[in-house]
Amino acid sequence: MSESIIGKAVESGRVSITCTNFRDFSDSKHRTVDDYPFGGGAGMLLKAQPIVDALAAIQEQAPETKKRVVLLDPAGKTFNQAMAEEFSDEEHLVFVCGHYEGFDERIKKHVTDEVSIGDFVLTGGELGAMVMVDAIVRLLPAVLGNEQSNKTDSFSTGLLEHPQYTRPRDFRGDMVPEVLFSGNHKLIAEWQEKESLRKTLLRRPELLEHMELTPQQLKWLNEIKQEQQAL
Amino acid sequence: MSESIIGKAVESGRVSITCTNFRDFSDSKHRTVDDYPFGGGAGMLLKAQPIVDALAAIQEQAPETKKRVVLLDPAGKTFNQAMAEEFSDEEHLVFVCGHYEGFDERIKKHVTDEVSIGDFVLTGGELGAMVMVDAIVRLLPAVLGNEQSNKTDSFSTGLLEHPQYTRPRDFRGDMVPEVLFSGNHKLIAEWQEKESLRKTLLRRPELLEHMELTPQQLKWLNEIKQEQQAL
Repeated sequence: MSESIIGKAVESGRVSITCTNFRDFSDSKHRTVDDYPFGGGAGMLLKAQPIVDALAAIQEQAPETKKRVVLLDPAGKTFNQAMAEEFSDEEHLVFVCGHYEGFDERIKKHVTDEVSIGDFVLTGGELGAMVMVDAIVRLLPAVLGNEQSNKTDSFSTGLLEHPQYTRPRDFRGDMVPEVLFSGNHKLIAEWQEKESLRKTLLRRPELLEHMELTPQQLKWLNEIKQEQQAL
Repeated sequence: MSESIIGKAVESGRVSITCTNFRDFSDSKHRTVDDYPFGGGAGMLLKAQPIVDALAAIQEQAPETKKRVVLLDPAGKTFNQAMAEEFSDEEHLVFVCGHYEGFDERIKKHVTDEVSIGDFVLTGGELGAMVMVDAIVRLLPAVLGNEQSNKTDSFSTGLLEHPQYTRPRDFRGDMVPEVLFSGNHKLIAEWQEKESLRKTLLRRPELLEHMELTPQQLKWLNEIKQEQQAL
């Protein structure tokens, strides 16, 4: 996390990230953190005690701040941009990450959120926590250089981002659409919005189901459907 | 990526991971890789030339292997366990990761897949590529210690994983369910399957819509609905 935009946010003092090793909180002789599952099954489970006691110690270190305690778990709620925005308003986030097969279910009574970054299985929760930290920290004021950058990203508008082009105008025979050179800002903005709709319709139609579309957007959607059929 | 299970897979020679900096392929004087978007808009775009030429160089380095070229893009297809399994059969995967606002659309004609790890925006594609590499490499034969570990994970069965418990039986008054001490393997397996169904119904009901459920599973689902209403 020390690289890139997140690293700069840490350097500038806007964010502070610390790691706690829950193995340090194990009350067993060999600092064990995992054990076999009751009822059989493959793999090992993380025990409740080291994690619950590590969380208590984190709470004691900063008793004045209310904490959001996020357990990384493939069976959790799926992380999305709305959740990133919600978490970016919190003062103190704690991410609980484990390797091994899973967690003792009783740990879940000591967290506020169970979150998964997607419908796939990772070797541990650390990468998922890094992904969430990245998505959250970039939303903090003054972390991204250009304030506007946040606003037109995919998901921020509810639609996928429209195609974008930069120089050269002719890349080995592959041309930038003419409209972008029209100098007509209204025409360009309309083209961009329509192409956002097209990309969303073709790739993630379910995103449109939950949106309130304007009459103009509905008209474009009909045009797009006809245009795609004509291809 | 040098840590953890992926690191061990690399050490043992089962996987090889190399990084290519497409800045090295820029044909401009100052090794520029980004430029302003045509038609206006905030942020910078990655130019087609450095990336397309870097991909050509990777192809030349190993001309005998067919490559799957995966562009990390928030507007791409959402990564999931089925995609991880598909990618784990490939001999050579190339992940194209960029920072900045986005890519010149014309890059997309030079890739085989456009993939997003979820409906959230990251500062760059590297974390997404690391997530995919982790999910894919752990599926390779002999990478995970316990072969069975793969099979009962969330998503591998189509259902979320059932609750699991390890010692102690009484954790500060919070007890492990009695059935797990019954010694009756059939009863335990049934409890686990029913609790998998319960977790999936309560948290991710849409996963059930695409599954062919057995008569027994349908019976359990009805029981679960009645049990939840009684709570």
